[in-house]
Amino acid sequence: MTDSVLAGIQSFCPTPESVPPPAPLYRLKHPEGLSVHIHPLNPLDFVLRAAQIYPDNLALAHPDVESPVYYTYAVWAQRIQNLAYALIQAGVQPGDRVAIIAPNSSMRALTPHYLPDAHHGALAARAIVTPINTRLTRPEVEYILDHSGAKIILVDYEFVHLVQGAKARVVVSKDTGRPGDPYEEFLSSGRRFSQEKGWQGLQAESNEDAGACLCYTSGTTGRPKGVLTTLRSSYLAAVANAFETRMNPDSTYLWILPMFHAAGWTYPWAITFAFATQITLRTVSYPHIWNHLLNSGVTHYCGAPTVQIGLVNAPEARNLDHPVSAIIAGSAPTAHLIGELEKRGIQPVHTLGPFTRNYFQPSWRQLSHDERSKMRARQGHSFATAQEARVVYAAAEDNGVPSGELRDVPKDGKTIGEVVTRGNIDPEATRRAFEGNHFHSGDLAVWHPDGSIAIVDRSKDIIISGGENASSLAIEQELAEHPDVLEVSVVARPHPKWGERPMAFVVLRSEAIQRWARKHAEFAANLKQHARGRLPGFACPEWVEVVPELPKTSTGKILKTQLRKLVAKL
Amino acid sequence: MTDSVLAGIQSFCPTPESVPPPAPLYRLKHPEGLSVHIHPLNPLDFVLRAAQIYPDNLALAHPDVESPVYYTYAVWAQRIQNLAYALIQAGVQPGDRVAIIAPNSSMRALTPHYLPDAHHGALAARAIVTPINTRLTRPEVEYILDHSGAKIILVDYEFVHLVQGAKARVVVSKDTGRPGDPYEEFLSSGRRFSQEKGWQGLQAESNEDAGACLCYTSGTTGRPKGVLTTLRSSYLAAVANAFETRMNPDSTYLWILPMFHAAGWTYPWAITFAFATQITLRTVSYPHIWNHLLNSGVTHYCGAPTVQIGLVNAPEARNLDHPVSAIIAGSAPTAHLIGELEKRGIQPVHTLGPFTRNYFQPSWRQLSHDERSKMRARQGHSFATAQEARVVYAAAEDNGVPSGELRDVPKDGKTIGEVVTRGNIDPEATRRAFEGNHFHSGDLAVWHPDGSIAIVDRSKDIIISGGENASSLAIEQELAEHPDVLEVSVVARPHPKWGERPMAFVVLRSEAIQRWARKHAEFAANLKQHARGRLPGFACPEWVEVVPELPKTSTGKILKTQLRKLVAKL
Repeated sequence: MTDSVLAGIQSFCPTPESVPPPAPLYRLKHPEGLSVHIHPLNPLDFVLRAAQIYPDNLALAHPDVESPVYYTYAVWAQRIQNLAYALIQAGVQPGDRVAIIAPNSSMRALTPHYLPDAHHGALAARAIVTPINTRLTRPEVEYILDHSGAKIILVDYEFVHLVQGAKARVVVSKDTGRPGDPYEEFLSSGRRFSQEKGWQGLQAESNEDAGACLCYTSGTTGRPKGVLTTLRSSYLAAVANAFETRMNPDSTYLWILPMFHAAGWTYPWAITFAFATQITLRTVSYPHIWNHLLNSGVTHYCGAPTVQIGLVNAPEARNLDHPVSAIIAGSAPTAHLIGELEKRGIQPVHTLGPFTRNYFQPSWRQLSHDERSKMRARQGHSFATAQEARVVYAAAEDNGVPSGELRDVPKDGKTIGEVVTRGNIDPEATRRAFEGNHFHSGDLAVWHPDGSIAIVDRSKDIIISGGENASSLAIEQELAEHPDVLEVSVVARPHPKWGERPMAFVVLRSEAIQRWARKHAEFAANLKQHARGRLPGFACPEWVEVVPELPKTSTGKILKTQLRKLVAKL
Repeated sequence: MTDSVLAGIQSFCPTPESVPPPAPLYRLKHPEGLSVHIHPLNPLDFVLRAAQIYPDNLALAHPDVESPVYYTYAVWAQRIQNLAYALIQAGVQPGDRVAIIAPNSSMRALTPHYLPDAHHGALAARAIVTPINTRLTRPEVEYILDHSGAKIILVDYEFVHLVQGAKARVVVSKDTGRPGDPYEEFLSSGRRFSQEKGWQGLQAESNEDAGACLCYTSGTTGRPKGVLTTLRSSYLAAVANAFETRMNPDSTYLWILPMFHAAGWTYPWAITFAFATQITLRTVSYPHIWNHLLNSGVTHYCGAPTVQIGLVNAPEARNLDHPVSAIIAGSAPTAHLIGELEKRGIQPVHTLGPFTRNYFQPSWRQLSHDERSKMRARQGHSFATAQEARVVYAAAEDNGVPSGELRDVPKDGKTIGEVVTRGNIDPEATRRAFEGNHFHSGDLAVWHPDGSIAIVDRSKDIIISGGENASSLAIEQELAEHPDVLEVSVVARPHPKWGERPMAFVVLRSEAIQRWARKHAEFAANLKQHARGRLPGFACPEWVEVVPELPKTSTGKILKTQLRKLVAKL
């Protein structure tokens, strides 16, 4: 912890209603009729255990704002209880949706301190938390509010315009944690409503397959699509994440990943399961991030590859003197990025949701840094508590695989198929996604002889060049090795002879911008030369465009759809 | 690993049938009709993942025997598959019991290498593993075989006499892992029977509440009682154990605890979940244990307090230069023992089954070594994946608690009640044990203001002295601090005036035996003097008897019933 954080903890005073009564009982009302040896899995249990076992440990710090807040597990649990009662008082019934609209900056993630509250408070009211991406337009937000049937909306003061005219009740947070803040008044009303019945006044959910979190896709095409996780799937994924990343009561997690992104990859609960501390930031910038990595004892953070690229290339980047685990998911990282993180002392934990993880092999210790980075960039094997991830042929008449049947591709490191899995995962509401009773990820991958999976592309991003399948990801991996390339994205562009050819959009490193100024054609030739030594002819980029930045979704995924629109106009 | 183990690994050659085919598929046949987002929890999954992800890692070493064996995860998984097919070929049906009788020495634990096989192979055949304690008499073993309805018995060559005349088929193991050993022939027949259908020829269990392991109590009174764990409870407890003890692929677990003791505390599966290595020993002696602690990279072991006492007091004991976690459960350890372990560099992880764990508190760092040991000797709080453990009044008319109702004792560190819990635990087949829809442990405890539980006694071991409840455990804790006491057990002895008074049975440390020879009355006076400064008068031992050893169950619990019989004759 920095000195200013320590001073903040000393001087901060939670609202009176956030302070628990003496000797609180962390016990929900048991549902009737349950067999004694079954306890329905529910990630709400974690915060009750944390408050009981480590009441004075710092649960949540929100330091870099005008009104910083610091909550111990005892205080935070009381606030969660207050929120649950406030929701019930507001008419929220079991199964109802509680929407939450929290800001994110132009960069991407921005987490006000009250966002983790909702992931627990809604569950304590047996409701479903529905975090909404604020990058969406007002009509999109309206669609989600309508589609989810949200009973109540918790909204940040900066985003009230998105919910004007909403039918549901709106509670605004000024992100202060101080009396007078409407969100604080809401919590306090919950405390009064509870009449000190405490946790015993709240019923435990008896059905572990009840909903936990309803997230919507960031919708690159069409309407946002809702994905509902269950209490059981959230519980098992959170436990697996805490285990796989070795979190413990001494760990500190920094919120860089937006919490509205796939239930924050279940970290709102994984952190609590491990009794760790979480730091939320209202302004997520690289100077802030590096300040915390260097000075706040941060041990864990999550981020999509594009965030990690910015992070290792920020001017504030330094070599770390304590171990930090960076969980990478969301899209496939390049081997180059993995290597750069390691050089800073950051250990990449590379996952594909709670489906697969790259497991470090003892034999990799003999490899060169570059070779090892390539191995670590593979998506690997099935995750703890998950079932086997497979790579299968697309069902199609021309390859003889009937619809509904799954056939594995050979484990040859070459044949491209789609990643499918099954198990305690999120039931997604599309028929296509469940063909053959497996969840179809839409990720194209090869299967290596050691059983590890390596994604080569999203199914819609593959480039068919002269009849060959060129993986845009493989091309990006090689172009990212060029010393002047900060970030690169490759899409298909129509070609009269070859059908399609790869076109690369490149963001230069800051130190290279000046050097190549007004010499982009020269740079393009230089990059193509670089590619020719590393890629087959059909995969070499035919065109290279230098751009100041790449279009991205609010979760940091590169918007290839927008690049394709640019290409279409060429 | 010692040099001899490394040499052993190099030179060992598994039977041809233990070698998997090229590119094996670690996938069971999916049951029909399961929803895509549910995967029934089953600890068998762990070994399939381990063999897929770390095929060449050492899964199991059995080094200190004439015929040592060393199995990688790939080979071990194949042997488990072979066992499953051999069981099916022998007529084992889903739900059937597979008994296993493996030896244990006069000390206590003795694990032949094939015992972990059964915990996985039986599950792969959808059967229930039933490990039988070999310390039991032949009629007791016969009773268990009959009561469990075992379809097949895997028995060690040293214990064939226990199963002579058994109705079920008997397969003898010579614990060699070499061709010609009947157990190996059994596995090989399974491989041939499978016709290389592999894991796909075995059906996954669709019901996670199906049985996993049927253990019998060591029966200090009456018939042994059976306790059946489910696949779900075993899965969740194993994951929690791996998380709580921070096991990972670099960990090495040493089998000191007998595997027939409460499903080996679920470690047969926890080790595999963490991709760790396990070492089994046929001769469990302190020289062997210390050799492995010092030279084999052992990081984890489990043991009841009495085993741990022997371990820290063995002449071979040294200070360790690498971290080792000692999981202590089975009965309550003394603070003295906790302190002695820490001095050797062994970190105690003190649990009460997968119900409670002592969670180290940051504030304890300020305490003296002795004070900290006392805090660590408490049983603590609810375990990961478990639900709250409570301390409740006994239901009885004289304290106004109606039968079937649970009422918490105050958290004052004084009031004695019984530990109860509920959740994903083992359904035990007694009515009393489930009063108020909670599992009654039979452990008497106080509840401290910080919510941690400290066991004061087994309910039958409390001493009522002059109307006061004296905790035999609290008395033992203090007497164990005497520098000449190795081990001590305290029971009630009738007293004409006070009703009952404590009597202490003491084993002296080896270096003190000579000094007090023929001066036991002097020692008794010395020990009573020691007690008077530390215990209230009613809790001071009225009688002290020096004995060469204490009577114990095969799982290392002190048999107070036998001490009481001695007392009755006085």
